[in-house]
Amino acid sequence: MDHQKPMFTTNPFDDDKLREECGIFGVFNAETASAMVALGLHALQHRGQEAAGITSWDGHDFHTHRAMGHVAGNFDRDEVIRGLPGGAACGHVRYSTTGETSLRNVQPLYAELSSGGFAVAHNGNISNAMKLRRELIRRGSIFQSTSDTEVIIHLVATSTYRTLLDKFIDALKQVEGAYSLIVMTPEGMVACRDPLGIRPLVMGKLGDSIIFASETVAFDVVGAEHVRSIDPGELVIVTHDGEVRSHRPFGETHARPCIFEHVYFSRPDSVVDGSSVYSVRKAIGAQLAIENPVEADYVIPVPDSGVPAAIGYAQQSGIPFELGIIRSHYIGRTFIQPGDKVRHLGVKLKHNANRALIEDKRIVLIDDSIVRGTTSLKIVQMMREAGAKEVHMRIASPPTRHSCFYGVDTPERTKLLAHRLDIGGMQDFIHADSLSFISIDGLYKALGEAKRADIRPQYCDACFTGDYPTTLTDQDEAVVQNQLELLAERVV
Amino acid sequence: MDHQKPMFTTNPFDDDKLREECGIFGVFNAETASAMVALGLHALQHRGQEAAGITSWDGHDFHTHRAMGHVAGNFDRDEVIRGLPGGAACGHVRYSTTGETSLRNVQPLYAELSSGGFAVAHNGNISNAMKLRRELIRRGSIFQSTSDTEVIIHLVATSTYRTLLDKFIDALKQVEGAYSLIVMTPEGMVACRDPLGIRPLVMGKLGDSIIFASETVAFDVVGAEHVRSIDPGELVIVTHDGEVRSHRPFGETHARPCIFEHVYFSRPDSVVDGSSVYSVRKAIGAQLAIENPVEADYVIPVPDSGVPAAIGYAQQSGIPFELGIIRSHYIGRTFIQPGDKVRHLGVKLKHNANRALIEDKRIVLIDDSIVRGTTSLKIVQMMREAGAKEVHMRIASPPTRHSCFYGVDTPERTKLLAHRLDIGGMQDFIHADSLSFISIDGLYKALGEAKRADIRPQYCDACFTGDYPTTLTDQDEAVVQNQLELLAERVV
Amino acid sequence: MDHQKPMFTTNPFDDDKLREECGIFGVFNAETASAMVALGLHALQHRGQEAAGITSWDGHDFHTHRAMGHVAGNFDRDEVIRGLPGGAACGHVRYSTTGETSLRNVQPLYAELSSGGFAVAHNGNISNAMKLRRELIRRGSIFQSTSDTEVIIHLVATSTYRTLLDKFIDALKQVEGAYSLIVMTPEGMVACRDPLGIRPLVMGKLGDSIIFASETVAFDVVGAEHVRSIDPGELVIVTHDGEVRSHRPFGETHARPCIFEHVYFSRPDSVVDGSSVYSVRKAIGAQLAIENPVEADYVIPVPDSGVPAAIGYAQQSGIPFELGIIRSHYIGRTFIQPGDKVRHLGVKLKHNANRALIEDKRIVLIDDSIVRGTTSLKIVQMMREAGAKEVHMRIASPPTRHSCFYGVDTPERTKLLAHRLDIGGMQDFIHADSLSFISIDGLYKALGEAKRADIRPQYCDACFTGDYPTTLTDQDEAVVQNQLELLAERVV
Amino acid sequence: MDHQKPMFTTNPFDDDKLREECGIFGVFNAETASAMVALGLHALQHRGQEAAGITSWDGHDFHTHRAMGHVAGNFDRDEVIRGLPGGAACGHVRYSTTGETSLRNVQPLYAELSSGGFAVAHNGNISNAMKLRRELIRRGSIFQSTSDTEVIIHLVATSTYRTLLDKFIDALKQVEGAYSLIVMTPEGMVACRDPLGIRPLVMGKLGDSIIFASETVAFDVVGAEHVRSIDPGELVIVTHDGEVRSHRPFGETHARPCIFEHVYFSRPDSVVDGSSVYSVRKAIGAQLAIENPVEADYVIPVPDSGVPAAIGYAQQSGIPFELGIIRSHYIGRTFIQPGDKVRHLGVKLKHNANRALIEDKRIVLIDDSIVRGTTSLKIVQMMREAGAKEVHMRIASPPTRHSCFYGVDTPERTKLLAHRLDIGGMQDFIHADSLSFISIDGLYKALGEAKRADIRPQYCDACFTGDYPTTLTDQDEAVVQNQLELLAERVV
Repeated sequence: MDHQKPMFTTNPFDDDKLREECGIFGVFNAETASAMVALGLHALQHRGQEAAGITSWDGHDFHTHRAMGHVAGNFDRDEVIRGLPGGAACGHVRYSTTGETSLRNVQPLYAELSSGGFAVAHNGNISNAMKLRRELIRRGSIFQSTSDTEVIIHLVATSTYRTLLDKFIDALKQVEGAYSLIVMTPEGMVACRDPLGIRPLVMGKLGDSIIFASETVAFDVVGAEHVRSIDPGELVIVTHDGEVRSHRPFGETHARPCIFEHVYFSRPDSVVDGSSVYSVRKAIGAQLAIENPVEADYVIPVPDSGVPAAIGYAQQSGIPFELGIIRSHYIGRTFIQPGDKVRHLGVKLKHNANRALIEDKRIVLIDDSIVRGTTSLKIVQMMREAGAKEVHMRIASPPTRHSCFYGVDTPERTKLLAHRLDIGGMQDFIHADSLSFISIDGLYKALGEAKRADIRPQYCDACFTGDYPTTLTDQDEAVVQNQLELLAERVV
Repeated sequence: MDHQKPMFTTNPFDDDKLREECGIFGVFNAETASAMVALGLHALQHRGQEAAGITSWDGHDFHTHRAMGHVAGNFDRDEVIRGLPGGAACGHVRYSTTGETSLRNVQPLYAELSSGGFAVAHNGNISNAMKLRRELIRRGSIFQSTSDTEVIIHLVATSTYRTLLDKFIDALKQVEGAYSLIVMTPEGMVACRDPLGIRPLVMGKLGDSIIFASETVAFDVVGAEHVRSIDPGELVIVTHDGEVRSHRPFGETHARPCIFEHVYFSRPDSVVDGSSVYSVRKAIGAQLAIENPVEADYVIPVPDSGVPAAIGYAQQSGIPFELGIIRSHYIGRTFIQPGDKVRHLGVKLKHNANRALIEDKRIVLIDDSIVRGTTSLKIVQMMREAGAKEVHMRIASPPTRHSCFYGVDTPERTKLLAHRLDIGGMQDFIHADSLSFISIDGLYKALGEAKRADIRPQYCDACFTGDYPTTLTDQDEAVVQNQLELLAERVV
Repeated sequence: MDHQKPMFTTNPFDDDKLREECGIFGVFNAETASAMVALGLHALQHRGQEAAGITSWDGHDFHTHRAMGHVAGNFDRDEVIRGLPGGAACGHVRYSTTGETSLRNVQPLYAELSSGGFAVAHNGNISNAMKLRRELIRRGSIFQSTSDTEVIIHLVATSTYRTLLDKFIDALKQVEGAYSLIVMTPEGMVACRDPLGIRPLVMGKLGDSIIFASETVAFDVVGAEHVRSIDPGELVIVTHDGEVRSHRPFGETHARPCIFEHVYFSRPDSVVDGSSVYSVRKAIGAQLAIENPVEADYVIPVPDSGVPAAIGYAQQSGIPFELGIIRSHYIGRTFIQPGDKVRHLGVKLKHNANRALIEDKRIVLIDDSIVRGTTSLKIVQMMREAGAKEVHMRIASPPTRHSCFYGVDTPERTKLLAHRLDIGGMQDFIHADSLSFISIDGLYKALGEAKRADIRPQYCDACFTGDYPTTLTDQDEAVVQNQLELLAERVV
Repeated sequence: MDHQKPMFTTNPFDDDKLREECGIFGVFNAETASAMVALGLHALQHRGQEAAGITSWDGHDFHTHRAMGHVAGNFDRDEVIRGLPGGAACGHVRYSTTGETSLRNVQPLYAELSSGGFAVAHNGNISNAMKLRRELIRRGSIFQSTSDTEVIIHLVATSTYRTLLDKFIDALKQVEGAYSLIVMTPEGMVACRDPLGIRPLVMGKLGDSIIFASETVAFDVVGAEHVRSIDPGELVIVTHDGEVRSHRPFGETHARPCIFEHVYFSRPDSVVDGSSVYSVRKAIGAQLAIENPVEADYVIPVPDSGVPAAIGYAQQSGIPFELGIIRSHYIGRTFIQPGDKVRHLGVKLKHNANRALIEDKRIVLIDDSIVRGTTSLKIVQMMREAGAKEVHMRIASPPTRHSCFYGVDTPERTKLLAHRLDIGGMQDFIHADSLSFISIDGLYKALGEAKRADIRPQYCDACFTGDYPTTLTDQDEAVVQNQLELLAERVV
């Protein structure tokens, strides 16, 4: 098991994608709660492949199992599920946002408070976690992980409010950033979403069970019904008497959910904040065809994430949709290329040009985004080596120019191709005959809006626009710290 | 490592497919032969996922490494490749045909003969292996495996001919059935194909290296050029002086290669006996649309093997091609469903209906074949639960009514749905609104023939027609044995 | 690795022994500190076989590695030691005292305090840990383990004193029970022993390095010199300027070190509080021969712990010392007896009677102690089956009648044979021809005292006498709790 | 499991010992045959620690399980024993004699012959195996291992005699060297010993079961009764009707069993060819005291193999027996010393001087043999560093000057200290104050003989005398081959 690196990717051309950091799932009042969580997390595996964890509550005790690696292989074993008894359970899949990678940081995090057990699963990123952590340690708190999520627990543990709910709201009011949370306590299960609703969270039901999840696909796998999204700034409590209560500790808030969920993160068969992801992606493809037409023989998707937009592009443009790139089925395990001589083979292990089709043809490649550009370069090259006459690249999102601080793994800004080059430069870099991106307003249009409301945008689109919807305390402090150090060096 | 079952499937809806049993790859006169074999086998992984092995020759010694499981994770480690030095190497991926599953049966098989080392990798099945084995044991041979391939080695070892080549031809003339072989000896590398050429075998080159493989995709991954197919009944020898000699020990033969390679086994980006597999599958889909039209809103492929035929069907019929079934990326590891309550979820772990698309629509599902029918039933049901108004199933091959004895894993004949039921019965069984298969002549037409030449068919199509191109000695003996036992019981 | 249970024993007849719970080792100012700790812990492996851990400090960062199982196999790998850089390190071997068995409870425990890192390795048991823990949680502390040792860290973290030393002394003054501690901070290394010095702790040096350890054997293995014992109630600090300062926060105290270290826990080649363990055990054997003589042909030790006392008994009595029981060398791995039929073989897997010697002879068996008596019964039986004419048992300690609450694993009191039966009853139980124990005063005599000073005993001998030298808060609370529950049941 | 090297030693100071290569055990007509074999092999573990295997026969099929490593941990699991059903079973523990170390060479070896299954477990070494192997390959036999034992199977398989017994005797008459064999066939179990009886083999019974084993300790562990030794040149057959028949295919033979079994290989609690090993070793120690007296304070055994001789020496000389070297209990896992700085610690990890005892004393160290001398040097040094005033070494066997070719692992002759140096030189090498060995006649005397019968010696003592009792075909051929190559070099 040691030498085999599991596949940490949501996409075969994965080295060059933004990565969603986490998926969460909770179920309350179910006969086999932890087995349902295992299935739900499996359906959310694309949101985090590095580690997974489940905590259950059996009415008396909390039980936790955490493991590095995938849900399958770890949480599909009878002895594991038997070790997680009880009618309530929550779980988490994770690609590390903050915190070094180790079992200590795998969620759900759990603590024994004076009120009893307290388990939390978090999707998002607390943007003032460092500052809060320093303060808590100064007052005598001892941290067991390097995860930003742990500050929430210590804020609850040391809150001077009386009830657990008040302690929890007290804690939430001190944190800043993005969070969708599922919390499990002896009093019941709590699901809540930050005031802007940056990361998604939906509620479903199956018989008498209430379910919370990052995406609706997790309802499909257990046969549950999608009820509604948790609203931005809403806090939903399910208690043992079956009551479901909604609180709004932040009052009315203006929502700005992450637009990239629609572009790439969510699965095409999910419904995010009311919209079918597949339909939106087809609409983006169609809009892209309208904005950036081209004469060509075939529309070819970069598998698999480019497929819906490619179908949309093909239907709008009338150019036939064809499979010009064949994906190996056996990407479950990364093939670590042996020997130096063969190291340049790269992308071919996972994909192969359909040479007989491509040869002497003009093709339009459709991909969802360009991050570093390294993979786009390889794909264009692969197409040319297979004999393509012209290679036109069309991208189903605007240029990605800014880092995300809300629970998405982005490279440093200087590594983003769109930060370094204009579109002409990018086209040269990837050796395409032409390159175009959908416009930001075109993207909003595909989402059903007239255009981006620049004063009060309907989505968080900071990765495209740099318009961050919250303060970024730790980030700002780090910048100031850096500048002070640079200054000090200059003075000396 | 123990509890994780690797994915033994070439297709997500895998429980209901015929399975190719083996893939082979050999390279002669290369600097890093074993690393190339590892890459080649990785590209052939869809032909056998249970075990893999590589044998190299360094001019003095033979080195072998064999492992249960995939090529990736076993043969991509530096220490393994370093342990396989030399300029010649051959390898094998396997899904067991005959012989219990154990490392002893993993190929290449190797023996020290009086002429020196002798390694063999075999794709196919010897249909008189049992009879030959009994005879060899009676004469004092000791078998180290239960593999049918080992009889070839013992026939060579005990042959009274003088040269190694004559011994080898002597052995081949005693065996019956299907075999594509790569043999490595201190004198050179031999590739040969049985007189009917039932299983494929192609020759490529890269610089001064000569390469043999089951499919051309294995050439793509190492950057080699496809030269030609080995002919049925041909035996090609590559020796150290760089000479490539062709022998035809069986004289002129009438070829009957396996037709199912085009339908399902081979990868769409391969070229089999001169034809692009992707183009053939699209042509089958188009022919299917001509033979079996239907009014519908969407053409929906059963992923992934149904996709090329679905594109062909959509283009021919003008009905839009859409993704109505979304495949999880995380099928690399089988999810063993925990607990009894959730065991019925079945197919949903790997696939999910794109409910927002399907609802209230008439759909045509395209799949490559129906074996037991159990998965087809589940898919139709999944489509109906997602709200499809009508579900029409179209199959890109004729009904599969007979077992294969030439190196393909088929269920017992009595489990084949098409053996038990006529097409109307099959339609009822899978609950489809309509069900049609391509005709046998339509299939030959898609392959560029006018029709099936019934006297001397151009392909082995025994799985559809029961027309086996060779005698089946072991099979016949087993039938006689059974009848004698039944008779004996009746007499007593 | 999973199915093989490592040997968790200090003695082959291990099921029936008291078990020391922990060994600790620290080194300050050494070039390869963690490698030295690994060696030292290996020499202390008999003090705890369940888990081991090492924490190092490299001047900037603390590094920790913890593992279930033995030191060998976990801490003798280069990559592990390279991952523990720095000139200071401390480590711990453990057989669980309190706290469930899991990696979270393996020491050294580590916390990031406002003063910086704080690592602690603890031998002993805090007898008011439960009460302190409840109080700390009430005030907002979050525990990461179930170990009693963690209360010390939280007491330090939340202490209102200003300096780290004052905070630490503040913490020590709140805990009760037995503790030998090695603490590592950025300011230096601290070693201290509880006011009674119940568990041992010695100081050594090697060049400029200062070393602390549970026993002197750990000095031998690294070639260090034994300087002296840490005194009961003493706190020694080593700082980076090389200074070694001694503090006595409890003033003058009356020492009562554990007498069982001399009887069984410590290795015979150790020097404990100034006395050679081997010499003391021989003296106990000689005293046993004086107090309880018997006519016999051979003196036979129960291997291995009975050997020194048997040599003493033989030399005093003039009866020849012989090996009547042969121990298998292969007890490193417990042999889990397969099948039901053979389950009664028990002790024979580890030992075998030297039948040719024993037959028709009168023998004196020497063992160090009797706990449950089950193994003694088996040994006597094995001797009789091998033909012994008479079997006399002599025990090198007084009857063990009471549980230990100071870091020794004892069975519940009701399972102690000496609690249930008088000596006559014990003799009948084990089927011996005679059975005698050394007297409590005889034991003190072998240790060089005139007799036990009953008012102020020189040792903690509570396991023999029930005379516990400290209050037992958690224990008393549990008793009261039990009685309240029984009362409540009666009332209802 | 990978990084932990199991203990491959029969003795703590193991690097400098001759090593017995194999132990065998078979049982016929028992209810739980394979469980009994597992226990018996565990008791014989000192005869081979590298690998183990068991083959059972259930009346229809043979079942085999083989594993690298110890019996415990591999053959004490229920699923393994359940996989070895049937009333007959035989097994083998092995330290490789010939043949590279791999699972293929682990015994019992098994082959399907025309007469049915044939399993063989072999203790010894065939000294013309290479020659026979070459001949068999020339005739078409294919070997599955590099083990010398496999030639026996091929000789049986290709024998032209009619009955299985005649084929087997035909094979035995062609092999030369040392062999104790247990063979299992559908017709019954066969045990036989070469004409000189070089390696031991004993017969026992338990109820209706017949048992064969290398040593009587294996009978003790299963509660069986020792019946007698198999005679040199005897072949015993047990058949299903319960009959036990004895054959003597070689007629009368003159026995020369290995004398080193008494010195070191066999366990002290075994009875070898009628003598108690413990008593013989004590007698050797007494004879050593008579031949080589010395004035000293203590007699100190080198643990554990020197203990019986040391007791004999002490009783004869009147000098007290004391434990001057303490062995760690935790040698089950080799401690791989981390880091360069600490690599010189060597032997101290396993042993420690009992410094308090040794200091300022004159000691006699008793060891069973000196092979390379490297460990003796370290022990003497350890004693001196602990303060010993004088260190006298006495060895309980004559100087080991020659290699063994009969199934014992000996270093090349040039590495044997006694081959390179006379006794004075050896004394200097190990830095002892004096060094003496027992005489060859003294050794025979301790075994109950008047003296060595030089014309027809009663034992094989070739390691001391160079007087090999058989021809050494492969060895002689290798010598000739070497000389030819040297000659060829000189000619060129």
